[in-house]
Amino acid sequence: MKVRVTEVGPRDGLQNESRILATETKVRFVDALSEAGYEEIEVSAFVSPERVPQLQDAEEVFQRIQRRGSTLYSALVPNERGLERALRAKVGKIAVFTAASETFNRKNVNASIAESIERFRPVVSAALEDSIPVRGYVSTAFWCPYEGKIAPERVVEVARELLELGVDEISIGDTIGKAVPSEVMALLDRLLDHVDQDRITMHFHDTYGTAIANVLTSYERGIASFDSSAGGVGGCPFAPGAAGNVATEDLIWALTRTGALLKPDLDRVRAASDLLASALGRPLRSRVREALSGAPSGAKEA
Amino acid sequence: MKVRVTEVGPRDGLQNESRILATETKVRFVDALSEAGYEEIEVSAFVSPERVPQLQDAEEVFQRIQRRGSTLYSALVPNERGLERALRAKVGKIAVFTAASETFNRKNVNASIAESIERFRPVVSAALEDSIPVRGYVSTAFWCPYEGKIAPERVVEVARELLELGVDEISIGDTIGKAVPSEVMALLDRLLDHVDQDRITMHFHDTYGTAIANVLTSYERGIASFDSSAGGVGGCPFAPGAAGNVATEDLIWALTRTGALLKPDLDRVRAASDLLASALGRPLRSRVREALSGAPSGAKEA
Repeated sequence: MKVRVTEVGPRDGLQNESRILATETKVRFVDALSEAGYEEIEVSAFVSPERVPQLQDAEEVFQRIQRRGSTLYSALVPNERGLERALRAKVGKIAVFTAASETFNRKNVNASIAESIERFRPVVSAALEDSIPVRGYVSTAFWCPYEGKIAPERVVEVARELLELGVDEISIGDTIGKAVPSEVMALLDRLLDHVDQDRITMHFHDTYGTAIANVLTSYERGIASFDSSAGGVGGCPFAPGAAGNVATEDLIWALTRTGALLKPDLDRVRAASDLLASALGRPLRSRVREALSGAPSGAKEA
Repeated sequence: MKVRVTEVGPRDGLQNESRILATETKVRFVDALSEAGYEEIEVSAFVSPERVPQLQDAEEVFQRIQRRGSTLYSALVPNERGLERALRAKVGKIAVFTAASETFNRKNVNASIAESIERFRPVVSAALEDSIPVRGYVSTAFWCPYEGKIAPERVVEVARELLELGVDEISIGDTIGKAVPSEVMALLDRLLDHVDQDRITMHFHDTYGTAIANVLTSYERGIASFDSSAGGVGGCPFAPGAAGNVATEDLIWALTRTGALLKPDLDRVRAASDLLASALGRPLRSRVREALSGAPSGAKEA
């Protein structure tokens, strides 16, 4: 089965790193990722520079990256002001963002889930009028740091509301990385009754080491689109509940070995991660990266 | 479902570390593990001190550890000479060791698989006469660094030969940590046709990040006994094909969250790992350990 990979390192990853990278470094990172042949790279977010200083140079990054025709370059957009900036920057796709947990959404964007969906209505309409595809994120889809376990029904409800707005794709996020495969199956069992599996992307974080198990369980249930970040960037490895996305290297390795067909080239993703590790000045969190780091350049798994 | 955990850090872990720990440190490590309440701890190996200098103090370690009545203290035994030493040290269980790959077995113990099984025959008989239970390891059960993919039929054959010798339990090892869940299912499908599931232990290494996925897949197939090492000790994180066992912390976390009942206490395993990390002078490879390291002592997952 073909699997689509959306690289979210430049946005979800870097947004959660304490060290702010130079614009030049981000551009080189995105260009290195482009070389790997992704279907989609989430490049940045058009959000308030005060709230997310890590991504305050979104316009400049979009202006300077080398775009490949076969890759969609997307950005997070929280409101109409953000959409205007994104359209001027000629993004290929936008993403809007809500949660399945009311408390998390209120702490994150100071609005109820219903309010944030209303806020997106004109954003999604305007994007679709411009033929810009739209992703809708549903974060804390399994566990919320404030509310605990989130009922699958709640996720289904939020996903359906986003689809009614017109979004093309729903990204279901295990924001704090606490889901296990049995919970992934329970959620997908409900969700697939209401949402076409081609519209679902799974977005796992690897806080407790279950991300690859969750990816493979989703794949077995027919899900063929995943988010990941090169080197598992994002979050702090020493802060509970805040580890990075599942590493793209680990995702490619495990899915390929399971028989899936993926576009991004593992060695080129590793090269992009090398650049990132130097810039961040710390080791990255990818088992495959560690395992292959002693191997000769270009060595591939049989 | 109840799950039995065999801690193999003191043997499989330390055997593969380049730094040799002081006997006193090993004793404190095993004692800290005993506090965690394991069913079984593989303490050391009665092998040639020249070949495995890391474990040359097996007698002294066995003599000095504080044994708990509810824990089996086991040791690897390669031959009759090793068994004599093990019996004098009053081990609670022994383990014999062969491979599913002929080439690996020959490089490892300089004998064919058939020859090594013949070598174990008197060892197993003598142990059983003394009412000492016996584990049989089958290493390289999925992938061999020399032969590549190992056919499930080969593993079934070796497992059956070991059971015919009289061993109580078979530990099926993914020695280089390269298996994925689809391969685990394929092997268990064959193996469970011939071997009672209560006699099977799965032994995963976490080289490429798939160990927890493999554990959870085995559990779903009815396997209720796993090997792991505190902090994922063993191997060098920067050497390809030689990473440590799946971390006990990650195993406990994922299985408990999946609904399994396990004896070892996560916080006490973490305390044993703390001791080990200091002694080895390097960070250990456990996602759960990293995630909880910022949490207050005694904090448990809901």
